[in-house]
Amino acid sequence: MSIFLGLGAMGSALAGAVRPAVVWNRDPRRARPFSEHAAVAGTVEKAIIADGPIIVCLFDHHSVHQVLDPVAADLTGRTVINLTTTTPDESRELAAWADGHGIAFLDGAILAVPEMIGKPGAAIFYSGSESVFTEHRDLLDRWGESTFFGADAGLASLYDMAMLTGMYTMFAGFMHGAAMLAAEGVPATEFAQRQAPFLAAMTGGLLEYAATIDSGDYAGPGQQSLRFTDAALSALLRATTGQGVSTEVLRPVHDLVRRQIDAGHGDLGTARIFEELRSTR
Amino acid sequence: MSIFLGLGAMGSALAGAVRPAVVWNRDPRRARPFSEHAAVAGTVEKAIIADGPIIVCLFDHHSVHQVLDPVAADLTGRTVINLTTTTPDESRELAAWADGHGIAFLDGAILAVPEMIGKPGAAIFYSGSESVFTEHRDLLDRWGESTFFGADAGLASLYDMAMLTGMYTMFAGFMHGAAMLAAEGVPATEFAQRQAPFLAAMTGGLLEYAATIDSGDYAGPGQQSLRFTDAALSALLRATTGQGVSTEVLRPVHDLVRRQIDAGHGDLGTARIFEELRSTR
Repeated sequence: MSIFLGLGAMGSALAGAVRPAVVWNRDPRRARPFSEHAAVAGTVEKAIIADGPIIVCLFDHHSVHQVLDPVAADLTGRTVINLTTTTPDESRELAAWADGHGIAFLDGAILAVPEMIGKPGAAIFYSGSESVFTEHRDLLDRWGESTFFGADAGLASLYDMAMLTGMYTMFAGFMHGAAMLAAEGVPATEFAQRQAPFLAAMTGGLLEYAATIDSGDYAGPGQQSLRFTDAALSALLRATTGQGVSTEVLRPVHDLVRRQIDAGHGDLGTARIFEELRSTR
Repeated sequence: MSIFLGLGAMGSALAGAVRPAVVWNRDPRRARPFSEHAAVAGTVEKAIIADGPIIVCLFDHHSVHQVLDPVAADLTGRTVINLTTTTPDESRELAAWADGHGIAFLDGAILAVPEMIGKPGAAIFYSGSESVFTEHRDLLDRWGESTFFGADAGLASLYDMAMLTGMYTMFAGFMHGAAMLAAEGVPATEFAQRQAPFLAAMTGGLLEYAATIDSGDYAGPGQQSLRFTDAALSALLRATTGQGVSTEVLRPVHDLVRRQIDAGHGDLGTARIFEELRSTR
């Protein structure tokens, strides 16, 4: 038996992929669709009477404490799998809280929208208790591809957020390009049909940048110099302004390049902006 | 016969794919590798004695004028294909200059590094004279996939720059994510191996965003609301700071979302940040 606390869009998708199940939601109306093939519990206390892992998918970190704190004493010796979206530090805090109560804790970060759960392409990152991950692997694999990153409960969330940062910046860059062309009457769809395969092909460049970063050799052959990238980005920014489009998405990228050049690295490879980003601590 | 003015890395790649050819470069040492299979001209005046299209690939817009202005009178009735990297407005200026001298002018923007010229994956965008594009299509296709965008000579450059904006912002977002994970000792290569296929898959989302932008219907079903994106980006920024990484790449994306929410659009789809970017003129 698996116990599901939280039946928002994502919690419902997770619970819907698993039988037998006990489900609970603060607003009981969201539990109604489950009444035919799951046990609906009216309270958290009643939900956790059942044996099995407790899967938590709530609004945020605060909600997790609101729901679990009152029953903490009853959770000693139990397993909690937290799939609520939390920051790395919030996941670590929950892991420490669980540890303090003798609760086995696994944190998960979902790389999928609810519609994708249980279908190809859905992936969930996990970190925290490796024995929970191993023991419940069959359950986890029902939702998507499961990957374990380590005992630090914050790692899954951190990895997820690093992935999403790339996605949101890519989306914003696309919007910028679409806005440049919109000024000439080019439909966004026409641009997207070229931009999407181009960017997909350019993701190959990430592996080259990564190899450079890991080697630390920004002077190796075949790298696009910071000076070249400066000139290219300057031209892009002039063209952006020429189209009446805001430069705010692209300007910070140029700033990173400029600061590296000002520090004397103009002839080195563009991957060196990595050093500019991480140097703040 | 094709005439090539400029033998930098890209000019050399273009000239190297075409025979017969006349080549010229300001520094004659760069022409030496061509001495066996092309006619090397010592001056621009001598280079343009040959019949055929004149392919110009120089350092920048200024260099194009430096090289062509002194021979402008001799170019009347000739064809110039400019593959120098220029902004849309610079391409338009060259087209007007060419028109004033009775020169048929086609502007090209190359989506490839020199090593890719003539190989699968290389693409060149063209705009300006459609008859030049049609007449010399066989030549153009030797370098890569050729696409004509219209009579406005600035369009090819503009389209190219819109494409590159997405690429550079994607690269910067990847650097940001890699820096977040580096703080925990995760190699950039390990991250890139997950990030590259994830971003390639997420380019599918660009087509959905584009359809929303073209329809103007930011209230339609299935869209991630600006309010949801605000919460997600806020969490990413907190986690970024927690890792000691600079927020400067991602913060402008959040700012766009926040301004749209402040304007009362929080329940509408995230694609609406497009309107925020283009609204400055």
